[in-house]
Amino acid sequence: MKQSWNAYANEHIVIEPGSSGSLSGKSFAVKDVFDIAGYTPGAGNPDWLRTHGPSARHAAVIERLLGSGARLEGTTITDEIMYSINGENAHYGTPVNPKAPGRIPGGSSSGSAVVVSAGLADFAIGTDTGGSVRVPAAYCGIYGMRPTHGVVDVSGLIPLAPSFDTVGWMARDAQTLLDVGRVLLDEKVSNGKREGFSRLIFAQDLWELPDEHSKNVLLRFFPMLQSLAGVHEEVVLASEGLREWMNAFRVIQGLEIWREHGGWVTREQPSFGPGIAERFAWASTLKPEENNEAFARRDRVRVKMEELLGGDAVLVVPTVPAIAPLLQLSGAEVEKRRVQTLEMSCVAGLAGLPQVTVPVIGELGCPIGLSFIAGRNQDLRLLEWVANVVDDRMKQMG
Amino acid sequence: MKQSWNAYANEHIVIEPGSSGSLSGKSFAVKDVFDIAGYTPGAGNPDWLRTHGPSARHAAVIERLLGSGARLEGTTITDEIMYSINGENAHYGTPVNPKAPGRIPGGSSSGSAVVVSAGLADFAIGTDTGGSVRVPAAYCGIYGMRPTHGVVDVSGLIPLAPSFDTVGWMARDAQTLLDVGRVLLDEKVSNGKREGFSRLIFAQDLWELPDEHSKNVLLRFFPMLQSLAGVHEEVVLASEGLREWMNAFRVIQGLEIWREHGGWVTREQPSFGPGIAERFAWASTLKPEENNEAFARRDRVRVKMEELLGGDAVLVVPTVPAIAPLLQLSGAEVEKRRVQTLEMSCVAGLAGLPQVTVPVIGELGCPIGLSFIAGRNQDLRLLEWVANVVDDRMKQMG
Repeated sequence: MKQSWNAYANEHIVIEPGSSGSLSGKSFAVKDVFDIAGYTPGAGNPDWLRTHGPSARHAAVIERLLGSGARLEGTTITDEIMYSINGENAHYGTPVNPKAPGRIPGGSSSGSAVVVSAGLADFAIGTDTGGSVRVPAAYCGIYGMRPTHGVVDVSGLIPLAPSFDTVGWMARDAQTLLDVGRVLLDEKVSNGKREGFSRLIFAQDLWELPDEHSKNVLLRFFPMLQSLAGVHEEVVLASEGLREWMNAFRVIQGLEIWREHGGWVTREQPSFGPGIAERFAWASTLKPEENNEAFARRDRVRVKMEELLGGDAVLVVPTVPAIAPLLQLSGAEVEKRRVQTLEMSCVAGLAGLPQVTVPVIGELGCPIGLSFIAGRNQDLRLLEWVANVVDDRMKQMG
Repeated sequence: MKQSWNAYANEHIVIEPGSSGSLSGKSFAVKDVFDIAGYTPGAGNPDWLRTHGPSARHAAVIERLLGSGARLEGTTITDEIMYSINGENAHYGTPVNPKAPGRIPGGSSSGSAVVVSAGLADFAIGTDTGGSVRVPAAYCGIYGMRPTHGVVDVSGLIPLAPSFDTVGWMARDAQTLLDVGRVLLDEKVSNGKREGFSRLIFAQDLWELPDEHSKNVLLRFFPMLQSLAGVHEEVVLASEGLREWMNAFRVIQGLEIWREHGGWVTREQPSFGPGIAERFAWASTLKPEENNEAFARRDRVRVKMEELLGGDAVLVVPTVPAIAPLLQLSGAEVEKRRVQTLEMSCVAGLAGLPQVTVPVIGELGCPIGLSFIAGRNQDLRLLEWVANVVDDRMKQMG
């Protein structure tokens, strides 16, 4: 798989802020799947670019960021049609992971994670359907946020699987992640002036997924985290196995992807890189009526997560199973890791809940991430808790 | 409230079919909220029309219908921004209910129901978020279908509350309702060659809602319906009360409506008729974080309905509480009926399930409806069962 030394899709797209605000002086980059007036988002695929026209106006989140003083500096490479969490792009090259060269950056918001990790932009906008912000943020050693489904405006975004699609963001520090959240989150999602969470939940089955080294590194933080919450609970999330949760996620995602893009794929017969072509081919075979169990499972997952978290608990989970895989791994090995990773990242996806990933140094000095999942609409409270409390404590521990 | 003797928004929009097919020779009308190339959908409000431009292409369902041989003959009046089930429009007038003159037609797909009921079109397309196809179909004495959420393409439709929005359709006979379903439903939603349903479920709490006359008329069909299914069960759907289900529906709908259209309302300060203005004002006050319980309740309703219906049961419910209210009723009285009706219609809405309403003659010779709700993706099976079995038996009973 070829590498790209430039993580930008187009670094010449520069837009000055519309007015000054809380993000004045900050630069940001945007995944190449959002509308920018006068440009055509390419979605990481040359045939997409060729068969679509320029956007009439900016996506809603870009308007908000420009209106808050941030300067747009470029669009970034994405996995093709966002349908991967690996960060490999056969057409434009795989962006180089600045914190783990020789390893994949994670995707699909690969370029967004890379330009932030490399210090080329203060923050970046991506999309997270099944982990596409959280996974590259973890592999590239930065902070990443997937919000509650529905609270950040997706207008002007190429859809992937709308019932899971969210606009997420990444930054090199927790304060910037919070500052961007204050701009992007629906102004009605307030934190209600409550601080922290009173219950910390440890999901045993999720902690069986990371490799030994990653688990040991991440578990060092546990006594400190427990001291921040009054109550500490251990649970098994999926008595039926997390593989079943992931399968429900993949099936619903596949059905929605084919509904959104099957017509285009069938009509244009686009050229896809390895993995992507197979994934679309698989999605095309899914029949809604044969997959009712996936929807029923998602509903049960949502009820279970609501009962577990309510408005006052946070679930602590690893973001990825291990450091980023090597670039020269075979397609089969990368696919195996993708499935392991989806077993972790599908939880917030299925439940529609907010998740923040915080960078941690793992094996060989390469990044991994520690994640926090909170209840519905607890987005700002979660970002504030991470920025004001958790981040400092984790840094004190080194 | 003024009446309109013309249920069309624009009867001069006529589009010939693109090719012949299963709907050749049939005419249809379209609610004025769908894209038709070169025209601007008005959504029942002059300020909407003034502040929006013409559509570049047809909505997906219109393309499908034209491609199957049907002829488009006009767009139809809708309640303003689809945010009502009454069928009253202060700007364009309330379309006359052909089967119950002097009474409201129901809405928001009011014009679509009226032109079909009056014999001006063979079928019509509407939208159903909280009852906007089912309710006017029942009040106007025709057949109506709300499909499983997500199985009929909503591209080119002005959204109301996307997690509930569906494209529905209406016809004067069950066979046409089925024929249109075969065209509009995702080709992958097959009926698997299964016929009928093995369990018939009677929800006691839903049957406490209609008035005495309507209940007696509808319950006459019960012994016949029981004879069609092997098993007959009685349940209470909502131990917490259907009012709580309806409140969850209204809150989530309100949050989504304000997310979709709050910006436009705030910016343009559109002129709204009675009821609509108050509803938007209420929606503007809703805060996501204060309404997490509504989302949790919806998830629990979905799990409950899936457990109840699975793939092999059908729930028999009244479509509306009584015959259509008189036009001269006060706003408060119409609002009271709207709430009663939503308690019935919110069930399929919350659960995302398909519902067919069959016309029945009620008090004073005015129409009411008997409805059937099936499990996820059982749409074609439900339409076939109604067209091939239920409808004949009901007609035999007169």
